[in-house]
Amino acid sequence: MNAEIVAVGSEMLTPQRVDTNSLYLTAELNNLGVEVVTKYVIGDHLERLRDAVRHAISRSEILVISGGLGPTEDDLTREAVAHALDRKLIFNSEICDALEQRFARLNRKMAEVNKRQAFVIEGATILPNDRGTAPGQWVEESGAVVMLLPGPPHELKAMFERQCIPRLARLVPQLVIRTICLRVAGMGESDLDQLIAPVYKKYQNPATTILAAAGDIQVHLRARCATEAEADALLAEVAGPIELLLGDRVYSRNGDPLESVVGDLLRQQHATVAVAESCTGGMLGERFTSVAGSSEYFVGGFITYTNEMKVEMLGVAPELLAEHGPVSKPVAEAMAAGARRRTGSTYALSITGIAGPAAGNETLPVGTTFIALADSAGTQVLQRQFLGDRTRIRNFASQLALDLLRRKTTGRS
Amino acid sequence: MNAEIVAVGSEMLTPQRVDTNSLYLTAELNNLGVEVVTKYVIGDHLERLRDAVRHAISRSEILVISGGLGPTEDDLTREAVAHALDRKLIFNSEICDALEQRFARLNRKMAEVNKRQAFVIEGATILPNDRGTAPGQWVEESGAVVMLLPGPPHELKAMFERQCIPRLARLVPQLVIRTICLRVAGMGESDLDQLIAPVYKKYQNPATTILAAAGDIQVHLRARCATEAEADALLAEVAGPIELLLGDRVYSRNGDPLESVVGDLLRQQHATVAVAESCTGGMLGERFTSVAGSSEYFVGGFITYTNEMKVEMLGVAPELLAEHGPVSKPVAEAMAAGARRRTGSTYALSITGIAGPAAGNETLPVGTTFIALADSAGTQVLQRQFLGDRTRIRNFASQLALDLLRRKTTGRS
Repeated sequence: MNAEIVAVGSEMLTPQRVDTNSLYLTAELNNLGVEVVTKYVIGDHLERLRDAVRHAISRSEILVISGGLGPTEDDLTREAVAHALDRKLIFNSEICDALEQRFARLNRKMAEVNKRQAFVIEGATILPNDRGTAPGQWVEESGAVVMLLPGPPHELKAMFERQCIPRLARLVPQLVIRTICLRVAGMGESDLDQLIAPVYKKYQNPATTILAAAGDIQVHLRARCATEAEADALLAEVAGPIELLLGDRVYSRNGDPLESVVGDLLRQQHATVAVAESCTGGMLGERFTSVAGSSEYFVGGFITYTNEMKVEMLGVAPELLAEHGPVSKPVAEAMAAGARRRTGSTYALSITGIAGPAAGNETLPVGTTFIALADSAGTQVLQRQFLGDRTRIRNFASQLALDLLRRKTTGRS
Repeated sequence: MNAEIVAVGSEMLTPQRVDTNSLYLTAELNNLGVEVVTKYVIGDHLERLRDAVRHAISRSEILVISGGLGPTEDDLTREAVAHALDRKLIFNSEICDALEQRFARLNRKMAEVNKRQAFVIEGATILPNDRGTAPGQWVEESGAVVMLLPGPPHELKAMFERQCIPRLARLVPQLVIRTICLRVAGMGESDLDQLIAPVYKKYQNPATTILAAAGDIQVHLRARCATEAEADALLAEVAGPIELLLGDRVYSRNGDPLESVVGDLLRQQHATVAVAESCTGGMLGERFTSVAGSSEYFVGGFITYTNEMKVEMLGVAPELLAEHGPVSKPVAEAMAAGARRRTGSTYALSITGIAGPAAGNETLPVGTTFIALADSAGTQVLQRQFLGDRTRIRNFASQLALDLLRRKTTGRS
């Protein structure tokens, strides 16, 4: 079975925006054994949308449309699909009531325009939206299915996962797809590829994809087979040698991000952690606390952006700052030790560096970063020179700090 | 004039890859006054490509195709366009000789398959490629022009800039495009639309697009006119009344994010800020420090995830925590006041709330958040009930905290 994906919205036809919903949708459709054969981005334009819908369902069995379900007059997806299928739009008072209640819970009155969101294509199944006001729709038409989904990614993902995948699974011929996602820290993309390509290049199935972010690489292996057992055997055959080559740089085998993996390790050990951040300004704390339940091990932290705050909040000695400067090994050590002392946590991580773009110099170029980890045995420090813009340098730094703690809590450093 | 863009290549239909050539092409076409009305990503498939070409040139004056000009049998763009236009492909010995010489210079023998790249659509102008082996083609057909460009971005950009833009400039009526991006805090999308739609609906030009994120809405206005002065006048005619309606909820007129706007205000006033974060865990500090140069006004902060840390780092009275709980108005106030007292900053912002997914209850459901701002005159607190998942609630909270400070520093609260 083939699928086409339409992203609706004039803003995605500007030089600044790309459609990313289609990447998520493609991954999920591929998991069901469905191939995506064409993607479109179309502005808020009735005829163009209508023509694309007609064209797509004349050739492919599945059409997923994202966006254009909002309350404004720009939001034309409902009308366009109704026109393309020659069906009416019918006002649904239950949706309208639910919308009114949603606004009432927020102590707000529903705007009149929101009633547009209560129109349903004749014969469509309504897909409730628990994260926003726009309900989705599922419409079947002579062997094809058309899904109308909201544009905001968190709404689209929740709706697709809970309501579309189970329905699609009943329509699509069963091929089993099994995946492994190895996540790897502390290695560059080309080095990793050079190391593991001799293994994965021998296989078309499983398919291997490598995705790289700052200090974080994902190796996706995807097997499509008639049975689960067959798929799992194939995955093991390829993943086994890859994991051997990568060793302890692999931090996750199920796609979990590093902050979850580290959180689980801390929880198991009944250990706690605190942070002391200079150039990352709270990013490391933000990552720790992005995990639900992190209050079990994350105590808190200090954002010490100025020298003065390093002294007052963390007890860094002014002489140390005067002699070595704030971006230095001794200051990183003193920051981590100070955070641990002042919070009583098992571990403390500190980051101090030059995120740029200005303020670099010959001895300390932009990207220079010191990362320290303090525990009861003392303090260790890493020095790194990260490349990239401000965001990338900060991402690298927070990733390496998390990985340093992972290695410590697994006895590897 | 309108343009459509087709990106060719099955690899761009995987979950990992997006087409980015179209962003560059859109920016350049917009500069010429040409609007991009549809984008496609199509796999290496002859009929689908042919159909898309036919469809595009039946509606739009300009079609730019990137990719599929390589030497392999997967590379079908030449054939597909020739089929769509009912023209022949003609072998061009000059291209073939140039290719052979290119390989000879690299001391390599040209593979037989590379001869495919020497086929030219009947009547096309050849666009030489000095950065790769695939020449481009420029084909005119009854009022429309089709460009075949190589997929690698550095080849495509060089070819488009040097060879397509000058040709397009002769075809396209000279139009100027000017834009305004208003950013708005503290309002929902549908309320905003209901308020301003009566203004912008009267105009096709400028075109209006509304984009919403957690607590942050962007209103894009885009005018296409013969002259800059005319475009600016049109923009002012529409933006003026919209700004009047939105009032001080508009925080930026040039697309700058809220953390930059607030940073500029603090810098102008020689004021400083500190943060005290519970449920956001560092996100507010991370946003302040994402702006280069934020060390001029951002002093630092306290991530006080536990009650104990609220007491020790910020001096929140234990009785206050015992009586009201950590997610309460008095504790938010005490956190902000404590952060200001301990850092000596002009302002301090605090956030305490229930980001979920667990830990909500009847009196304090998930999403309940208190945000406080302390300055020399005292402390003010907002209570809000945000909807959404953990990430969205934290985004809302950090956005509202920044906006509270913006209002304070502009004398609006």
